[in-house]
Amino acid sequence: MSGLELVSKTRCFDGEVRKYTHSSAATNCKMTFNIFLPDIAISGKERVPVLYYLSGLTCNEDNMVTKGGAIPFVSKHRIALVTPDTSPRGVCVEGEEGDWELGTGAGFYVDATEEPWKANYNMYSYVQLELQQLVNESFSVDSARTSIFGHSMGGHGALVLALRNPGHYKSVSAFAPICHPTTSDWGRKQFSAYLGSNESDWIEYDATELLKVYDGPVLSILVDQGDVDQFYSSKQLQPSHLVVAAECNTRLIKLETRMQPGYDHSYWFIQTFMEDHINFHAKKLFEEN
Amino acid sequence: MSGLELVSKTRCFDGEVRKYTHSSAATNCKMTFNIFLPDIAISGKERVPVLYYLSGLTCNEDNMVTKGGAIPFVSKHRIALVTPDTSPRGVCVEGEEGDWELGTGAGFYVDATEEPWKANYNMYSYVQLELQQLVNESFSVDSARTSIFGHSMGGHGALVLALRNPGHYKSVSAFAPICHPTTSDWGRKQFSAYLGSNESDWIEYDATELLKVYDGPVLSILVDQGDVDQFYSSKQLQPSHLVVAAECNTRLIKLETRMQPGYDHSYWFIQTFMEDHINFHAKKLFEEN
Repeated sequence: MSGLELVSKTRCFDGEVRKYTHSSAATNCKMTFNIFLPDIAISGKERVPVLYYLSGLTCNEDNMVTKGGAIPFVSKHRIALVTPDTSPRGVCVEGEEGDWELGTGAGFYVDATEEPWKANYNMYSYVQLELQQLVNESFSVDSARTSIFGHSMGGHGALVLALRNPGHYKSVSAFAPICHPTTSDWGRKQFSAYLGSNESDWIEYDATELLKVYDGPVLSILVDQGDVDQFYSSKQLQPSHLVVAAECNTRLIKLETRMQPGYDHSYWFIQTFMEDHINFHAKKLFEEN
Repeated sequence: MSGLELVSKTRCFDGEVRKYTHSSAATNCKMTFNIFLPDIAISGKERVPVLYYLSGLTCNEDNMVTKGGAIPFVSKHRIALVTPDTSPRGVCVEGEEGDWELGTGAGFYVDATEEPWKANYNMYSYVQLELQQLVNESFSVDSARTSIFGHSMGGHGALVLALRNPGHYKSVSAFAPICHPTTSDWGRKQFSAYLGSNESDWIEYDATELLKVYDGPVLSILVDQGDVDQFYSSKQLQPSHLVVAAECNTRLIKLETRMQPGYDHSYWFIQTFMEDHINFHAKKLFEEN
């Protein structure tokens, strides 16, 4: 059995938003996620494409479904939307609480190799392997049509997962992602803690570095960035680094980066461009092979 | 001067969501509201129509703008959206806290006549007079094109304000409104406290009773009600009473009530039908006279 426990379900946009918990082997704790299922997936009539959304620092599984404004559009295209939490919770690791940039709410989508994190802080494997296997086995989704996107730390996560698993995702997009974490405070701080001091170990979690050496099917990437985003100004995000790296790999990487004047780092920004992102993924998810 | 203090502003859907506070004479305390302004209203290029949204029990000015999903649609139609709080706050009235159905978060859009409420709990005058005057004077809106809607207690408020002020609103709509509060626990409890024991004083805050005697320009009303809404089941909402009353006044009242199968009382329900409600109001707000 899957071990999924249904916490709640609510009808919404000709489908249901459901919250589930389950025991995770990757993180050694109970994890929670939300899933929106359109009616044709609930009835089992069709296997629908599935889109994963990874949230940013301090967020949990609820931010996107509450404030992201995605559900009208995934409903329209009949796509399942999965929103995992951003870290293990309540695992009693020293240093887990008290710093919003590390530990709880700040898993950074890596598999930790260092103490005291390595028993639990394995969000890379959790999202890429365990959660997707669970979703694929438990719901009427078509695992061959999977895409991923995210915001900030979750934008980093989405890019890293897509670049490290060529062909696994039909498309990837991000709102204000951390693009070059081995060179920004957001990244260096967490990688030092979770991965240790050997910086060559960090490369496999750095979208800009991974993009340079990406080899696989042509990958379409859409990135939106607000130009009054405080974390853009403070050089935590560095979308220009991603652009430069993509220019080294134009045969395989189709990157569109859009600067959005006046927009900040918040969910107000995210929801403004949500329809574009869902349409971008829908186009790839429903493309004839 | 208006005395408006800007708390925050954020770019969103080609406009801004702004939060303001101001000292209110109606409620004798500081009140807070949000307003979405499309760019043409921010620049002062055009006076845009204005739509008020009244929230339900326990809510504040944020629920709608955070979870209602209205902003893409008011932005598209270039309408200003105003979301007031649901009661005075922090006025140190005995009994104000501790009961979610009375006091804070439960102003019920009446002008209280009873102690200890009457100095502050005047949400009818606050919304109908003070707030609208303030908005009309402070922003590039066209007061001749005003509409109103709301949810639950706020649906009751929207219907009452529209029915008591013929011609003031171009249209009114509601999600799961309390339709006949003089006959349901939600209503009788609050009216007893705020208005006293003389039930004839309650009639002027009862949409079903007001609808029977409405006299004024033809009024279009749209009501959506989920059929698994627990408060519908427990007879707090009673949309059928509104339907029966409207049948007595079909010349002046154009009521469309839609039962929505499987939907509950939550913001998931509200956001599902938000586009329909905004389109309903836009049609009336932009109608040629």
